[in-house]
Amino acid sequence: MAYEFKAQRRVEFSDTDMAGIMHYSNFFRFMETAEHGFYRSLGFSVVDSTLNPRVGWPRVHAECDYRKPLRFEDLVEIQLLVTEKRSKALSFQFRFYKVNGESAEEVARGALTIVCVSHTPDGSMKAVPIPQEIADKIEVAPAGVL
Amino acid sequence: MAYEFKAQRRVEFSDTDMAGIMHYSNFFRFMETAEHGFYRSLGFSVVDSTLNPRVGWPRVHAECDYRKPLRFEDLVEIQLLVTEKRSKALSFQFRFYKVNGESAEEVARGALTIVCVSHTPDGSMKAVPIPQEIADKIEVAPAGVL
Amino acid sequence: MAYEFKAQRRVEFSDTDMAGIMHYSNFFRFMETAEHGFYRSLGFSVVDSTLNPRVGWPRVHAECDYRKPLRFEDLVEIQLLVTEKRSKALSFQFRFYKVNGESAEEVARGALTIVCVSHTPDGSMKAVPIPQEIADKIEVAPAGVL
Amino acid sequence: MAYEFKAQRRVEFSDTDMAGIMHYSNFFRFMETAEHGFYRSLGFSVVDSTLNPRVGWPRVHAECDYRKPLRFEDLVEIQLLVTEKRSKALSFQFRFYKVNGESAEEVARGALTIVCVSHTPDGSMKAVPIPQEIADKIEVAPAGVL
Repeated sequence: MAYEFKAQRRVEFSDTDMAGIMHYSNFFRFMETAEHGFYRSLGFSVVDSTLNPRVGWPRVHAECDYRKPLRFEDLVEIQLLVTEKRSKALSFQFRFYKVNGESAEEVARGALTIVCVSHTPDGSMKAVPIPQEIADKIEVAPAGVL
Repeated sequence: MAYEFKAQRRVEFSDTDMAGIMHYSNFFRFMETAEHGFYRSLGFSVVDSTLNPRVGWPRVHAECDYRKPLRFEDLVEIQLLVTEKRSKALSFQFRFYKVNGESAEEVARGALTIVCVSHTPDGSMKAVPIPQEIADKIEVAPAGVL
Repeated sequence: MAYEFKAQRRVEFSDTDMAGIMHYSNFFRFMETAEHGFYRSLGFSVVDSTLNPRVGWPRVHAECDYRKPLRFEDLVEIQLLVTEKRSKALSFQFRFYKVNGESAEEVARGALTIVCVSHTPDGSMKAVPIPQEIADKIEVAPAGVL
Repeated sequence: MAYEFKAQRRVEFSDTDMAGIMHYSNFFRFMETAEHGFYRSLGFSVVDSTLNPRVGWPRVHAECDYRKPLRFEDLVEIQLLVTEKRSKALSFQFRFYKVNGESAEEVARGALTIVCVSHTPDGSMKAVPIPQEIADKIEVAPAGVL
């Protein structure tokens, strides 16, 4: 079981905007990078086609607090922590660290809540319990870590 | 003085992801579209080069609650409302409506807080009061609207 | 029948990069905006679910020549012209004009070749003839226009 | 001196579109990832602020031929090869390989031509010779490689 994952990304030119910093919407793309890496680290994929029925993971809430900007070629560590696990939903916290050799400074902190859904025949989505084999692998980070 | 602005966008193919819906990070790009249109409607630009000193508007907080998905070619109305005006910061609420002929259904609701900054000689950013000619044009939406 | 379509877009903040100009990859997103608007103008959608069998339109070639940069808030007209129509493929030329009141200056020129495919049971794609009801609506731009 | 660089990327969820494959515009973002990594491997950055005068590298031509799609979580190797070096311009070829354990299949091939520019006082750009310390490090790939 796991409650944490760390992904690394380098800020690319296409991640920046004319203010010379990473566009604020791209922090949400980076959160997802860490989230999907977390799933892979547990041995499954967010688009696992072997699950029956197939499930999807739409986001119902996303947020980010920005403290310092990230710039082109900055090396970023995105730390994912599981903050809540319910029968049909998961919540994560994300801490963005700008890495400089041995040191790392937190520059932003985000959060996501996602819901497990299956697709009904009419094309809409319906919340369903997280498949047991996935739920069994995920735990909530202990209080001391959060 | 104004506290509201409405922008329209059609969801493009490049806004979607493999789940067949608009990627959740793109709601934040659409918020900014409404925000910048709001400024233009007031007669200035977020990158106005005539202000002295020049100011920037980094985001310090962004969030979004997603109720229903948006799909390719959906027509979206993004309603911006000013929720708070401080000397150095502005907060906005954004309501996303999927437009269908005469009817419109709210599918998501977001928020942004931005800070007015100037750039110090060492390249860092420092919060400064919103230029008077801009602050004079913006008011907070009345309680009945929010 | 039609061989031309014009779409308009305003360059958004998220379209720019730290060089202060629209990122070169976004011209390809704008081409697709014009392409899909062209289809809508003909009464169908690139994801029309009423066609049987359902078809897709992957790109097999894309290119762009950049003459002048586009900047934030520039108003852009993207002119699509059909340059070739084959049984299973279409080619388009795209001319990007920066619009300034009555005048318009061409700043870039692109091209796309797309192929009509259906999805085989094993998940791969196979080129198929363009559905007749679509092919009948599209013609190649006359030599004097190209 | 060097004429080659290889970068690796995993296709992310936000790189895909509703067709279930990587959006065609993102191949151009991946090309730039390899290009900027190539510069870093030579000891400089595309936004090197120590050069005097400072130079920029706008793209004047970009193209891509797509053979097979890339999908979410595919591991991609982007091979950059220098195909031409002129006093004020560089051309690159990019080969996209989908990596599967030991094997790698080419799925797309792209090209970029970039020009070295300095910014004139009126804000426009003017082609200038590539700084000697950069030009000295870059060579053209031998015929047998291309």
